[in-house]
Amino acid sequence: MYNIIYSQGGVCASAGFFANGISAGLKPDGAKDMAFIYSESECNVASVFTTNKMVAAPIKHFYSMGDFKTNFVLINSKNANAMTGNVGVGDINEILSNIQGAQNPIMSSTGVIGVRLPKEKIIEGIKLFDYTLRDSNSAAHAIMTTDKFSKECAFKIKLDDDSVFNIGAIAKGAGMINPAMATMLCFITTDANVPKCEMQEILDEVTKTTFNAISVDGDTSTNDTVLLLSNSKSEAYEKEAFKEALFKVMHFLALEMVRDGEGATKLVTYKVSGAKDDREAEIAAKALSDSLLVKTALFGEDPNWGRIASTIGASGVESNEESLKISFDNFCVYDKGELFFDVEMEKKCAIVMQHKKFTISCDLGMGDGSFKAYGCDLGHEYVKINADYRT
Amino acid sequence: MYNIIYSQGGVCASAGFFANGISAGLKPDGAKDMAFIYSESECNVASVFTTNKMVAAPIKHFYSMGDFKTNFVLINSKNANAMTGNVGVGDINEILSNIQGAQNPIMSSTGVIGVRLPKEKIIEGIKLFDYTLRDSNSAAHAIMTTDKFSKECAFKIKLDDDSVFNIGAIAKGAGMINPAMATMLCFITTDANVPKCEMQEILDEVTKTTFNAISVDGDTSTNDTVLLLSNSKSEAYEKEAFKEALFKVMHFLALEMVRDGEGATKLVTYKVSGAKDDREAEIAAKALSDSLLVKTALFGEDPNWGRIASTIGASGVESNEESLKISFDNFCVYDKGELFFDVEMEKKCAIVMQHKKFTISCDLGMGDGSFKAYGCDLGHEYVKINADYRT
Repeated sequence: MYNIIYSQGGVCASAGFFANGISAGLKPDGAKDMAFIYSESECNVASVFTTNKMVAAPIKHFYSMGDFKTNFVLINSKNANAMTGNVGVGDINEILSNIQGAQNPIMSSTGVIGVRLPKEKIIEGIKLFDYTLRDSNSAAHAIMTTDKFSKECAFKIKLDDDSVFNIGAIAKGAGMINPAMATMLCFITTDANVPKCEMQEILDEVTKTTFNAISVDGDTSTNDTVLLLSNSKSEAYEKEAFKEALFKVMHFLALEMVRDGEGATKLVTYKVSGAKDDREAEIAAKALSDSLLVKTALFGEDPNWGRIASTIGASGVESNEESLKISFDNFCVYDKGELFFDVEMEKKCAIVMQHKKFTISCDLGMGDGSFKAYGCDLGHEYVKINADYRT
Repeated sequence: MYNIIYSQGGVCASAGFFANGISAGLKPDGAKDMAFIYSESECNVASVFTTNKMVAAPIKHFYSMGDFKTNFVLINSKNANAMTGNVGVGDINEILSNIQGAQNPIMSSTGVIGVRLPKEKIIEGIKLFDYTLRDSNSAAHAIMTTDKFSKECAFKIKLDDDSVFNIGAIAKGAGMINPAMATMLCFITTDANVPKCEMQEILDEVTKTTFNAISVDGDTSTNDTVLLLSNSKSEAYEKEAFKEALFKVMHFLALEMVRDGEGATKLVTYKVSGAKDDREAEIAAKALSDSLLVKTALFGEDPNWGRIASTIGASGVESNEESLKISFDNFCVYDKGELFFDVEMEKKCAIVMQHKKFTISCDLGMGDGSFKAYGCDLGHEYVKINADYRT
């Protein structure tokens, strides 16, 4: 058995990790726009990147390094270094050669597409880094774009033999995914003694039910990145404990991203069960969290169960009206052809929808497949941010 | 050779067809809410219905009739008769038994989901029909939901031997597709002597590049319906002429639907070429017309080509930044890694985007596949309509 305890310090909660954010003048008004994460000993790396075919230069650069250990991640906001071709990759190499003592440094960027990095400003910015600082929160601030709040968390894991390891992370999301201005980025550190061969497998598995289960606008950016850095400073490790703690970190940050979705006022869990298999449950749950009509109904606090049913039907998964069951939190509005949606029920559901968090459950009645997706509403603020963001 | 001439009269432009809309009290304030299309001789029928698994009762009723000829279509707005199970199909049978002289009548509905049809009102409404009227426009008005204007058109086709046939249609779209309040419906009549065996094939083919190429919000309703009724009153027919005229009718009405999309202010053509094949071109073009980020950029009149590139990349089709070319009307902003997007070009493109109609062209540089999709922008009005529609 093991104990997972909430702790402070973000990426610096793990032993041997340092981080800080500074202003290099990429953002206006002296806002922080560059950050580093540094480990005093080398790290194994696991990664999940965007499935977008127009991958940004930082991801191409990462892939070009093959199998490697690293002790340094450089992150900038305001410029995504995407659609910049080989020139963009060359810029990264030039920038990273300016970091002394960095071993196979990784670069990660978020911001506008199709503009070359302001190399000089970034190289000047690197000189401002203080590698003795453990200020995860200032790093979390530096990587924000349209985010309204910074995102970090950490857990301490105590194993049965009283040995201890830590996992911490910072992330940014907001637009989630606004490919021109934002991007989903998450950097996770751990001092757990996790075997290199298990890191990628665990990260892939946990990503499925966390970052790959959330949606703000259904788009996939050119720069989406999740990096897991492990320096094995602690000798403690247990696979199940590590996996559960990693899930807690990534689940928390994924929901923070949805909560901070552009213009979002509600965080909704779409719990699909009874699908033919888990894959079909995932398709249906994500169709709900991506549907414009469902999102605007949420914003209007309208318990419009017909849109839920229609969206499931439109998603193409095996389903029919004779087997479907729909609930808003604990209130069942439709059960296999029987309609419980009268004026009284409508009032009850409308009250549920006034909450900041609630669950819409759909049992398809077809099999044992299940999936939980997380989404938000879409209101005037989203339109405003995305129509006007460059002005 | 042949001549396709724009004409008047909508569905009644075809010889032997009658139509009218009346108010049965389903909509408030005496607005028209029921319509019929009647042919004095029996018609062959071709049809395209929604791919939504939660098909509405009228579609189930249609399928239950097997192979048949008809002379009557009854249409109501305000209630979709969807998610109403066998009871909903029973209601249709009961209603249709009240239409005297109707041979295998078809019913079609649009409106709110999950509420039984107001049978009595509809049966009373049927008594108000005058089967001697040829008022296509009042029928077009009666089938509207959130549409801002009625939609109809007709063409007269003159063949080389001076023989003549007609095609006419009415349609409604608006929400396109708002499964709770609207739906895409289109009813096409023709007096052409089209062989029954060719009707379905031609309708399927033309649907692909017209109604299946448009998008307002990417949703698919429970009730989407295209019906083609042919009474062969004219002896004239030529396959290519018929197909081209049918394309003109459906293309015109499809673009009218986009133009009338909820809150839409712009009609944008997404012309994708150079895809691996036509299927991939279609996927990319539809991804563009469905993307929230592209739609809001259009609304903001922001020539944000990075979102175009990213959306193509996210759609999963074969593409890369070294082969891609993007233009706004005639202005090329990005060509295989070369960026022509400076301040001057940004101004030119912003002017293009102020137009009510323009084209965004993307050459993927991968092969010969091409497709044109049509979409609109998404602004505050869409959010307002869809968040508040039931109040």
